[in-house]
Amino acid sequence: MSEVKKLFEANRTYASQFSQGQLPIPPARKVAVLTCMDARIDPLRALGANLGDIHVIRNAGGRVTEDAIRSLVISEQLLGTQEILVLHHTDCGMLTFRNEDLYDKISQRLGPDSAKAASNIDFLPFTDLEQSVRDDVETLRNSPLIPSDVLIYGAIYDVHTGEVIQVS
Amino acid sequence: MSEVKKLFEANRTYASQFSQGQLPIPPARKVAVLTCMDARIDPLRALGANLGDIHVIRNAGGRVTEDAIRSLVISEQLLGTQEILVLHHTDCGMLTFRNEDLYDKISQRLGPDSAKAASNIDFLPFTDLEQSVRDDVETLRNSPLIPSDVLIYGAIYDVHTGEVIQVS
Repeated sequence: MSEVKKLFEANRTYASQFSQGQLPIPPARKVAVLTCMDARIDPLRALGANLGDIHVIRNAGGRVTEDAIRSLVISEQLLGTQEILVLHHTDCGMLTFRNEDLYDKISQRLGPDSAKAASNIDFLPFTDLEQSVRDDVETLRNSPLIPSDVLIYGAIYDVHTGEVIQVS
Repeated sequence: MSEVKKLFEANRTYASQFSQGQLPIPPARKVAVLTCMDARIDPLRALGANLGDIHVIRNAGGRVTEDAIRSLVISEQLLGTQEILVLHHTDCGMLTFRNEDLYDKISQRLGPDSAKAASNIDFLPFTDLEQSVRDDVETLRNSPLIPSDVLIYGAIYDVHTGEVIQVS
């Protein structure tokens, strides 16, 4: 059985015990967290948040991309969030490669058409973890699409200790 | 105290009890889930996954954007995932507006410079939930950046019952 099929199976148990079906769409705590897709991060548990409390946006690195801004605009303008937390993390895969490494890998594994499609993409790796947080917070602070009264925080999650350290 | 500051406070309790600090970077179950930022979705609990098991990518709607593909390429090429689940959900905010509504709101609230910045953005609302899943799965299946042997599933999470229903 595929792993996704096993996830579907496991969902039956979750659904059979589910009791929080009447929560409203807007996040109760008016917070949007932007963090990495990394498998070792459980944003709700790590931040003591409950179902219905916060928006969670995740991508490779937790980077402030155009798509993250799309999501944040919807979060704020339509669903009332007023605070943003940019949360990157230690031991991030984004610290382990350069765009060129990934271009080469795609070329070797998937062939020239795929290599060409990849060649326009900045995969957004970084070399300095704290700086990546500061850069992304700065991008949000300078965005004309994020209201100036939205509180923006930057922090690092330590995957080895479970600690969140504020850096911005 | 701001809500984010309260999340930081709550993290101290999480970190003080944290015991899973030695997990490897690659997701143990080789699955990447792409779902919505909605506050009523707890992907790990809903799918019976543990810390370290799966990549979780989230944006407004759980849409297959260029940024989602950036994340999925990193997930597959660098971190070994072999299955993708696109998971949209009932009662999604993306069913409640059109781009024009959001352009108007941004213009009124944030002014002309912001309206101009927003005018190039497709916020990716949709009107048919099942079709949005099928469309996004199809986009992935046709992408030159997603290997043809990656298993791609589409499903809908019901925020009222906790159930996941496979649609593709």
